Amino acid sequence: MSYSVDYELSDADENVHHVWDNSLDPRVTVEPGDIVRFECRDALDGQVGPDSDAEDLANASFDPVHPLTGPVAVEGAEPGDVLAVELLDFEHKGWGFTGYMPGEMGLGLLPEEFEEAGLHVWELDDEVAQFVNGIEVPLDMFPGIIGVAPGDDGEHDTLPPRDTGGNMDVKHMTAGSTVYLPVETEGALFSTADCHAAQGDGEVCVTGIEAPMFVTARFDVLKDKSVKQPQLETTGPFTPTGSDEPMYATTGIADDLMVATKKAVRHMIDHLEAERGLTRGEAYILCSAAVDLKISEVVDAPNWTVTAYVPESIFP
Amino acid sequence: MSYSVDYELSDADENVHHVWDNSLDPRVTVEPGDIVRFECRDALDGQVGPDSDAEDLANASFDPVHPLTGPVAVEGAEPGDVLAVELLDFEHKGWGFTGYMPGEMGLGLLPEEFEEAGLHVWELDDEVAQFVNGIEVPLDMFPGIIGVAPGDDGEHDTLPPRDTGGNMDVKHMTAGSTVYLPVETEGALFSTADCHAAQGDGEVCVTGIEAPMFVTARFDVLKDKSVKQPQLETTGPFTPTGSDEPMYATTGIADDLMVATKKAVRHMIDHLEAERGLTRGEAYILCSAAVDLKISEVVDAPNWTVTAYVPESIFP
Repeated sequence: MSYSVDYELSDADENVHHVWDNSLDPRVTVEPGDIVRFECRDALDGQVGPDSDAEDLANASFDPVHPLTGPVAVEGAEPGDVLAVELLDFEHKGWGFTGYMPGEMGLGLLPEEFEEAGLHVWELDDEVAQFVNGIEVPLDMFPGIIGVAPGDDGEHDTLPPRDTGGNMDVKHMTAGSTVYLPVETEGALFSTADCHAAQGDGEVCVTGIEAPMFVTARFDVLKDKSVKQPQLETTGPFTPTGSDEPMYATTGIADDLMVATKKAVRHMIDHLEAERGLTRGEAYILCSAAVDLKISEVVDAPNWTVTAYVPESIFP
Repeated sequence: MSYSVDYELSDADENVHHVWDNSLDPRVTVEPGDIVRFECRDALDGQVGPDSDAEDLANASFDPVHPLTGPVAVEGAEPGDVLAVELLDFEHKGWGFTGYMPGEMGLGLLPEEFEEAGLHVWELDDEVAQFVNGIEVPLDMFPGIIGVAPGDDGEHDTLPPRDTGGNMDVKHMTAGSTVYLPVETEGALFSTADCHAAQGDGEVCVTGIEAPMFVTARFDVLKDKSVKQPQLETTGPFTPTGSDEPMYATTGIADDLMVATKKAVRHMIDHLEAERGLTRGEAYILCSAAVDLKISEVVDAPNWTVTAYVPESIFP
């Protein structure tokens, strides 16, 4: 793909903000069709590095979470429009991390089971991320956070996603995809952050493969499209490894979708421990990085089926 | 794949039962390694046929739902074991149906929106099912119900799936896959039913492409494996069309997984209505047959992201 970047936004302090707020001054104002290259810090804003251990993660502060790069104003964007964000390219910086925090922080899908912090620092090359036991997770880069300023005035936390996008963690927002965001404020005020070198659907331990990264995107304003919450076109890969291939799956069956989700993940951790020789903490991290959650059925009352899939080819 | 069938179970009344019950007499007792070919009626037990309209569906009785073919006892299977069911082959009978029922029956994901019944009867060939507007859904056959008798005595409804399987509607239980079921009663007492020619993850309108079908499976008893709820190995296809390809996706973002799921599906129905010229009822049916639901993140409290994906290649 051939394109030229119109604007660069580095991750210097003046280009980084930590809340969604429609009163923030745009760092740059672009025209529809323009291309911007964002430098994005990792989700924990540098508190964990390539040489960190689990203790560094356990001691991390959540105050700087998340450092968002932006905002970018797009000329002509008005409330009711749709901002189309065509994702062109991602470049990581050679490393990433996946970790879970102590249970008392209540983060992740299974805080009751994992009471200590755990961390894996991944070495990233052009194609894969290296895990333990020879396991290789294919790179599948995307920004966990991609969004525009909410119409409601004031400061809004970056942790939950909302109608205007934000921390959606939709792993299919990969290069070649276009994301459609509902504009709620003049100029849209777009920001991105929290890039992942790969992530399973669910992001169950609360982190994907968190990695500082460059994100290159082209903007357009659509006056004849309307969306209530974000939508996207994706070119894939749709599967964790980019190919239709054998998977192992566990089901979680329960009368509540959250309980069913927890069961499916617990059963997958049991499986990875018994069949692949991982510790439960390693298995939890691998689930977050490479296991996809699907809702198999949500109509066979009173019980729903959630299913967790791991591709067999990531194992040596 | 070369194999010879050891036993045939037709869909005659003596081989069909309508509840899970560990006191039912097995129709046949097989040894590990044996192959059985089951003839399965459709989920509504013949009340809807190739010439039916929506009124026939609206007037259908739920008393005969579901007609299960079986049970098959497997020698040596004891409580605590795992029954491995290798799915070898499916043969449909040339037609299937997908429909939704009146809202007062409360079935499906969106009964509040669809107050009348709707029905599409599909013509099935070797590869695809024909929908309206030139849309073709690739066949991806599997049994919605695959399970063994619960250990708890008495009659159990077939609608909800449970620890021993049943109406799981996991679309990846396709030919070439192996399903692992926890045995809770002597001989396991396996039955199958409710075959689908294709289905989206979620089965949102309460029916997949419901089709009478033959199911051929090989049984084995595993003494050294233990599962709490069903698990499976699948060879795919993992994607709705069997290939990694462009998809259009809608997000549903909310602080409850069920609400997020409803939002994602409503947004997809909006999209199919606006961009693909379908009525809302047709769109609901297409979602149930060909749109996959994923849990993109379940950790960014207090809001979760559920995503609905439709493959672009099903459209002409």
